[in-house]
Amino acid sequence: MPDDLKIAVIGGGYMARAHSVALAALPVYVDDLPFQPIREVICDATGDLAAEAARRFGYNRSSGDWRAVVEDPDVDVVDVVLPNDLHLEVVEAALAAGKHVTCEKPLANTAAECAHLLAAAEKAGVVHQTGLNWRLAPAVQQARRLIEDGTIGEIRDFRGFWLADFGADASSPMTWKYRKESAGSGSLGDTGSHVIDFARYLAGEFASVVGLSRIHVPERTPAGGGAPEPVDVEDDAAFLAEFTGGAYGYVQLTRSSPGRKNHCGFELHGSKGSVVFDWERMNELRVYDSRDAKDRQGFRTVLMGPAQPYGGQFWRVPGYQIGFGETKVLQFMELVRAIGGQGDVQTSFLDGLRAKQVEEAVEASIDTRAWTEVAR
Amino acid sequence: MPDDLKIAVIGGGYMARAHSVALAALPVYVDDLPFQPIREVICDATGDLAAEAARRFGYNRSSGDWRAVVEDPDVDVVDVVLPNDLHLEVVEAALAAGKHVTCEKPLANTAAECAHLLAAAEKAGVVHQTGLNWRLAPAVQQARRLIEDGTIGEIRDFRGFWLADFGADASSPMTWKYRKESAGSGSLGDTGSHVIDFARYLAGEFASVVGLSRIHVPERTPAGGGAPEPVDVEDDAAFLAEFTGGAYGYVQLTRSSPGRKNHCGFELHGSKGSVVFDWERMNELRVYDSRDAKDRQGFRTVLMGPAQPYGGQFWRVPGYQIGFGETKVLQFMELVRAIGGQGDVQTSFLDGLRAKQVEEAVEASIDTRAWTEVAR
Amino acid sequence: MPDDLKIAVIGGGYMARAHSVALAALPVYVDDLPFQPIREVICDATGDLAAEAARRFGYNRSSGDWRAVVEDPDVDVVDVVLPNDLHLEVVEAALAAGKHVTCEKPLANTAAECAHLLAAAEKAGVVHQTGLNWRLAPAVQQARRLIEDGTIGEIRDFRGFWLADFGADASSPMTWKYRKESAGSGSLGDTGSHVIDFARYLAGEFASVVGLSRIHVPERTPAGGGAPEPVDVEDDAAFLAEFTGGAYGYVQLTRSSPGRKNHCGFELHGSKGSVVFDWERMNELRVYDSRDAKDRQGFRTVLMGPAQPYGGQFWRVPGYQIGFGETKVLQFMELVRAIGGQGDVQTSFLDGLRAKQVEEAVEASIDTRAWTEVAR
Amino acid sequence: MPDDLKIAVIGGGYMARAHSVALAALPVYVDDLPFQPIREVICDATGDLAAEAARRFGYNRSSGDWRAVVEDPDVDVVDVVLPNDLHLEVVEAALAAGKHVTCEKPLANTAAECAHLLAAAEKAGVVHQTGLNWRLAPAVQQARRLIEDGTIGEIRDFRGFWLADFGADASSPMTWKYRKESAGSGSLGDTGSHVIDFARYLAGEFASVVGLSRIHVPERTPAGGGAPEPVDVEDDAAFLAEFTGGAYGYVQLTRSSPGRKNHCGFELHGSKGSVVFDWERMNELRVYDSRDAKDRQGFRTVLMGPAQPYGGQFWRVPGYQIGFGETKVLQFMELVRAIGGQGDVQTSFLDGLRAKQVEEAVEASIDTRAWTEVAR
Repeated sequence: MPDDLKIAVIGGGYMARAHSVALAALPVYVDDLPFQPIREVICDATGDLAAEAARRFGYNRSSGDWRAVVEDPDVDVVDVVLPNDLHLEVVEAALAAGKHVTCEKPLANTAAECAHLLAAAEKAGVVHQTGLNWRLAPAVQQARRLIEDGTIGEIRDFRGFWLADFGADASSPMTWKYRKESAGSGSLGDTGSHVIDFARYLAGEFASVVGLSRIHVPERTPAGGGAPEPVDVEDDAAFLAEFTGGAYGYVQLTRSSPGRKNHCGFELHGSKGSVVFDWERMNELRVYDSRDAKDRQGFRTVLMGPAQPYGGQFWRVPGYQIGFGETKVLQFMELVRAIGGQGDVQTSFLDGLRAKQVEEAVEASIDTRAWTEVAR
Repeated sequence: MPDDLKIAVIGGGYMARAHSVALAALPVYVDDLPFQPIREVICDATGDLAAEAARRFGYNRSSGDWRAVVEDPDVDVVDVVLPNDLHLEVVEAALAAGKHVTCEKPLANTAAECAHLLAAAEKAGVVHQTGLNWRLAPAVQQARRLIEDGTIGEIRDFRGFWLADFGADASSPMTWKYRKESAGSGSLGDTGSHVIDFARYLAGEFASVVGLSRIHVPERTPAGGGAPEPVDVEDDAAFLAEFTGGAYGYVQLTRSSPGRKNHCGFELHGSKGSVVFDWERMNELRVYDSRDAKDRQGFRTVLMGPAQPYGGQFWRVPGYQIGFGETKVLQFMELVRAIGGQGDVQTSFLDGLRAKQVEEAVEASIDTRAWTEVAR
Repeated sequence: MPDDLKIAVIGGGYMARAHSVALAALPVYVDDLPFQPIREVICDATGDLAAEAARRFGYNRSSGDWRAVVEDPDVDVVDVVLPNDLHLEVVEAALAAGKHVTCEKPLANTAAECAHLLAAAEKAGVVHQTGLNWRLAPAVQQARRLIEDGTIGEIRDFRGFWLADFGADASSPMTWKYRKESAGSGSLGDTGSHVIDFARYLAGEFASVVGLSRIHVPERTPAGGGAPEPVDVEDDAAFLAEFTGGAYGYVQLTRSSPGRKNHCGFELHGSKGSVVFDWERMNELRVYDSRDAKDRQGFRTVLMGPAQPYGGQFWRVPGYQIGFGETKVLQFMELVRAIGGQGDVQTSFLDGLRAKQVEEAVEASIDTRAWTEVAR
Repeated sequence: MPDDLKIAVIGGGYMARAHSVALAALPVYVDDLPFQPIREVICDATGDLAAEAARRFGYNRSSGDWRAVVEDPDVDVVDVVLPNDLHLEVVEAALAAGKHVTCEKPLANTAAECAHLLAAAEKAGVVHQTGLNWRLAPAVQQARRLIEDGTIGEIRDFRGFWLADFGADASSPMTWKYRKESAGSGSLGDTGSHVIDFARYLAGEFASVVGLSRIHVPERTPAGGGAPEPVDVEDDAAFLAEFTGGAYGYVQLTRSSPGRKNHCGFELHGSKGSVVFDWERMNELRVYDSRDAKDRQGFRTVLMGPAQPYGGQFWRVPGYQIGFGETKVLQFMELVRAIGGQGDVQTSFLDGLRAKQVEEAVEASIDTRAWTEVAR
C-alpha cells in the first residue's frame, strides 16, 4: 500500500467539485500510483462553508483559514482553485511552506507575477503545476505524437479556437465575468490560456501577434433587475500569430457565438499531414496522412482508446468515451507521479507563465493596433 | 449528513473497477442523496484477490466468501458483477437476505430464471435493478423526452445497432467470449440486451421477430498457440421486429465489423420527427422536427448539457462531455435514490427479464427460420 | 468528327428533362466518344405536348406517335422515360425495330416481363440498358474497386437504405404514387430497385429474403379537396436478406421518415475493411482499412475526384462536386460507348430483371410471412 | 420561342469547357428564359485550336482572332475565360463594341484597371458580370436569406477559407501557378477573390485588414526535370479584417494544407444565429437559430433543394445534389435574364473591383506589417 499524499484544496466552488471528483476517482482508475492521494482538507471563505464543502466533496477536514492550511505540516500538496486575483498570495505562501502546488489557470494576473511564482517554485524545489488539463485529453496527446513521429511533417499553420455562446444573448444578466474589476479580462484570459497552450504544445512558441477584440453586448442588466451596467471586458478576442518555428496561426476566443457551446480545439496543417480537434467531440481526432493512396485518402476519424496516450487509463474499448472529468484525473495523475519521481508534469508554472506572456502581447497588439513581439 | 448505505460488490474484475469509480464519484457529483454510499466490502474468488481489489478500488473490507457477504447484516446493497452464470445463485441469496440488489446484465441465463428473480425481488420488497445503464445517457433520456412530449409523433420505425470490431481479425486469439460454454451466446446476449433495452424504452414492447446469425471466424487459435479451436457462438446477430404499437424495427449486433469500435445506438422515425444516436458521439443527439420552416429544416446536432435529463448532474456547460463512467454514476444515483424512496429505478429486474425474452425469441426465430412471437 | 447517334426520347415529363440535360452536356464533358449523341426527337402524349417538350429540351423534332418514332429509320437509340406500365410495349416495339434501348427502371412490371424483354434484346443483338444510374456515382464505383482489389476482404454484411420523407406528412395530398393501380407498388418498387442494385453490385446476388411493409398514412385527401381516399401501396418496406456468397443484409425503403430527404446509400463490412455511402453526401465515401496502424486508424472521409472511377470525367479538383445530373451523363456515356463497341454498359436489362426478381421475392415473403428464395 | 442570344467564348481551355457545359445545359434546365443562349463562336490562340474547341464544346463557329470576334455584329455576348493578364484588353474591346460582357475573375490585374473597366461598362450601358459564381450556390444564397430576414441578427464575426492541397507536396512540379510573372499572385489572387466575395456578400464591406503570407515550398523542379526554380508567389495568405458594419473576420487561403481538397467556405456568427458552409459539402448549410428551445437546440444540417434560393432550378428532391457545374448554369442564367431585363446579375464588375481592392489592401498590409484601410 503506497503512502498517503495529503491534499489540501483551497477554494470550495464549482471547480473544487471537479477536482474532488477527480481525486476520488484517480486511485480507482489508476494502478501503481506512487502515493495514495487523500482528500485531506478543504478550505473555503468561512469555516461553515468549508465544512459544508468537506461534507459534500468528501474531505477529512475543513477550514476557513487558508494560511493555516497551507502551512499545516500534515498537508503535502496545495491545490489552488480560488478566484484569479487570490492565486498569487496563496501560491506564494504554499511554496514558502515547501508544499507541492497545483494551481488553476491563470497562474497569476500578470506575466511578471507568474515569473515570480515560477522562480519561487524552482527555488523551493517542489513539483509545480498549472491546471492546463485540456491538453491532456488523449486526442490532443495523440496529435502531439503524430507531430513528434514525423507524420505531420513541418508545421505550416495552426488555428486554435474556443467559441462559446453563454454570453450571446444580450438579455442574459450581468455577472462578474463581464466586469474588468472582477474578471481581469474577458475571453482572452478566460479560455484563451488553454488555446494558447494547445498552440504552444503543438506548434511551438509564439514569436509575434496582432489582434483585435470586441464587446458585442455593451451593457447588461443585473439578475435582480435595476439599471444596466457597462461591460468592460471583451466578449471576443482574435489574433494572428507567427511562431518561432516559421508557422503562422490564428486564435479566436468568443463567448457570444450562437450555437457554439464548447467549440474548443484546433486545426493544424503540416507538410505531410494534418490534424483537427474539437472538444465537442473530444474522443475523436481527425487525422490526414498524405502517404495514403490517392484514391482512398481522406481525413480519418480516429476514436480514442487504449492505443492513444492516456487513452488506456480508463476503458478498454475505443469509443466508450471519457469526458472533461477524466482530464482532471490525468492532471492529478501526473502530479502524483511527479511527486513520486515518476516523470514530470506536462504543464508546470512555466506553461502558466508562457500563456500569460502571449496574452499580454495580444493585449498590447490590440491597444497599439500593431504586430507585437511575445516576450519570453 | 445522510446515513451510510453500505454496498457490497460481488466480483473483482474489470466491471468492478467501473462500478467502484462510479461509487467513489457519485456523492461528490450529486448533492442531496438520501444516503451516503459506502464502498463497504468487495468480494472476489479468493481472499487474496479480494484484498487486492479492496486496496485498489477503495473498499473498507474484502472477502473471498460471497455468501457470507450477502448475508452480512452490515451490508445494505449487493452489487453483482460476476460472470453471467453465477448471477442466479448470488442474486437469489441476496434477495433471500433482504438486500437491495443491482445486477449486471444479463440478469440471468434464461427468461425463466429472470422471471424467478423478479418474483423473488418483488416478494422481498427490495429495490432491484438491472445494469442497463446505457439508456441513462442524457442523449437517450432526451430522445425519450421528445417522444413523450409529442415532438416525434407516432413511432414508425426503429433501428438499433451495436457494431464492434474486437473480433474482426481472424488472427485475434481464442477467448471465453467465443465459446458457448463460457459465454452462453455471442453478440446477441453480450451487447444485444442494451440495444433491446433502447428499443423497448423508445419504441415500446416487441411483438414478434425474425432473425439470422453468423459466425464469421469459425475457429481461433489460443493466445499461447496450439491447435485452432471452434467458435460456437455467433459473431453477428440481426433481426427484424414488429412492436406491439405498430412500429417495425431492425436490430444488428456484431463484433466483426472493421472500424466500428463502439457503434452503439439507434435511429427512430416518427410521424412528426426523428432522433438518431450513436454512442461513439454519446454527448450528441441528432433531432429532426418537421415543424421547422421548409427552407431551414434539418437534423439538429444537440449537444448534451444541463438542459437535458441527467445532463445537469455533471458539468454546467454543454459540450464539456461525459463518458461511459458517468452513466454508471447515474445508475447508482437512481439506486440510492430509490432506496431512499425518491422515485424508482428505470431499469428494474423486469427490464432484465424483457431483454432476455426478446433474445430467446430471436434465437428461436433463427433456429426455426420463422417469425416468432415474443413472450411476455 | 464522330458520326451522329440519333436518340429518340419517349416521354416528356420530369425525367425527360434530366435525360435531356445529360444528353446536352455529355459531348461537352466527355472527349473521344465514338458517336456524337443527337437529341433527335422527343415523343409525348400529344403532338402539342411533344412540340413544347422539343422546344424546351432542345430536340430537332417531336412527335405524338411513339410507335412511328421507334420505327423511324432515322433513329438509332430509343430512350424510354414513360410511366412504368407502358415500358413493356414500347421497349418491345423498339427492340423489334432493331433499336438500341435504354429504359428507366423498373424495366417492366413483373420479372417475367423483364425476362421477356431481356430475351428480346439479346435476340435483337442491340445494346440494352436499364436506368440504374445511381450505382454509377464515383463513390459507389470506388466502393466496388475496394472490394475487387481486396481491401474490404470477404463481405460480411450489407445494409442498404433509401429513406425519404416526401410522404411523411399525413396532410400531404393524394397522388398517383399512393395508388396501387397507378404506381404498382410503393417504396419497394420505387426506390427499392436502386438499393437492390447497390446490393447486387457490391455484395453479390440475393439468395433469400424475409420482409415486412407498412402503410403509415392509410388515407389521403386529394389536392383539390373532397373525401379522403385509401392508400393501398406501402410507405415503407424492409427486409432481411441472405446473399449467395454468405453475407447477410438488411434493406429499408421509406418515404415517411421525417428529415430523411434522399438518404440513399449503404454500409458494408468485410473481413478487412468497411465502406459507407450516403447520397446526401454523394461526393464522399467513408472507408475503413484495418491495416492502418492502431493508434491512427479510423474511417476516412474520401472526397471524390479524378482518382476515383468516373470521378475524372468532370472536374480536376476533388471536392468541386458533382450531382445527380452527372450520373445520368455517365449512364449515357456508357450507352454511347457500348454502341461504339467500347465496353459494356454496367446496367443491362439483366440488372433490371434481377432487381425485379428480388422485389417479387420480398413481396412474397411479406404475404407469406416467411423466408423466401429469390428466383434467378 | 425566344430570340437567340449569341455568345462568343474567348478562350479554349479548362474553364471554357465548364462554361460550355453550362451553356448547353442552361436552356434545358431553366424554362422561360428571355433569350435562347446560343454557343455561337469560340476563340482560341490559333484557328486550329479554336476549331478543335468548337468541335468538342459544341460551337457553331470558331476563330483565332479574338478582336474580330468581339467586334462581330453577329455576337451579342462576350464571355472572357482567358489568362488573367489578357482580361483588360479583351474586355475593353468588347465593351467598346457594345457587347454584354461576362469575365472570369480576376476582372483585371489591378484595382485601377478594374475601376476603368467598370466605368467603361457603365458608359456602354451593357450588362457586365464577374464570374464569382461560387456565391450563387444555393447554400450561400440561403445564408444570405437568413441574414436578410433577421434570423442571424447583427453580424459579429466571419471566417472565410479556401484551403487546398494541390501544392502541399514539395516534389510536385513547377508550374505557372508558382511564378509571379505568370500568376500575378498566389492563393490570395487565385481563390481569395471568391472568399472575399463571400465575406462582402454576407458580412458587408471591408474596412481594414492586416495579413501575412507564406511560401512553404521555396523552389520546385520543372516537370521535365532540370534545376529547381524559385517560387515567388505565396502558398498561403491569411488576414484579420474589420468590416464597416462592426464585425471582424479572418480569411485564410492555402494550397499546401494536406487533406484539404476544396475546403472553401465560411462560418459566420450573429447576435441571434449562425451559419457554416463548406463547399466540400456544398449541398448543405449548417444553421443555428438561438430561438430553438434550450433542450433541443443545435446546428441544423439543412439539405439544399427547392425550398432554398436557386435550389429549385435543378431537382425536385432535396439531397439529389448539384455540383460546381450548376453554379455556372446559375451564373449564365442571371446573365441571360439581366440582358432580357429580368433583374440584375449579382456579381457585376463592381464586385470584381471590390475583391481586387481588398486583395491590394491585404498585400499592402503584408508589405508594411500594419493594419491597412481598404480603399473604396
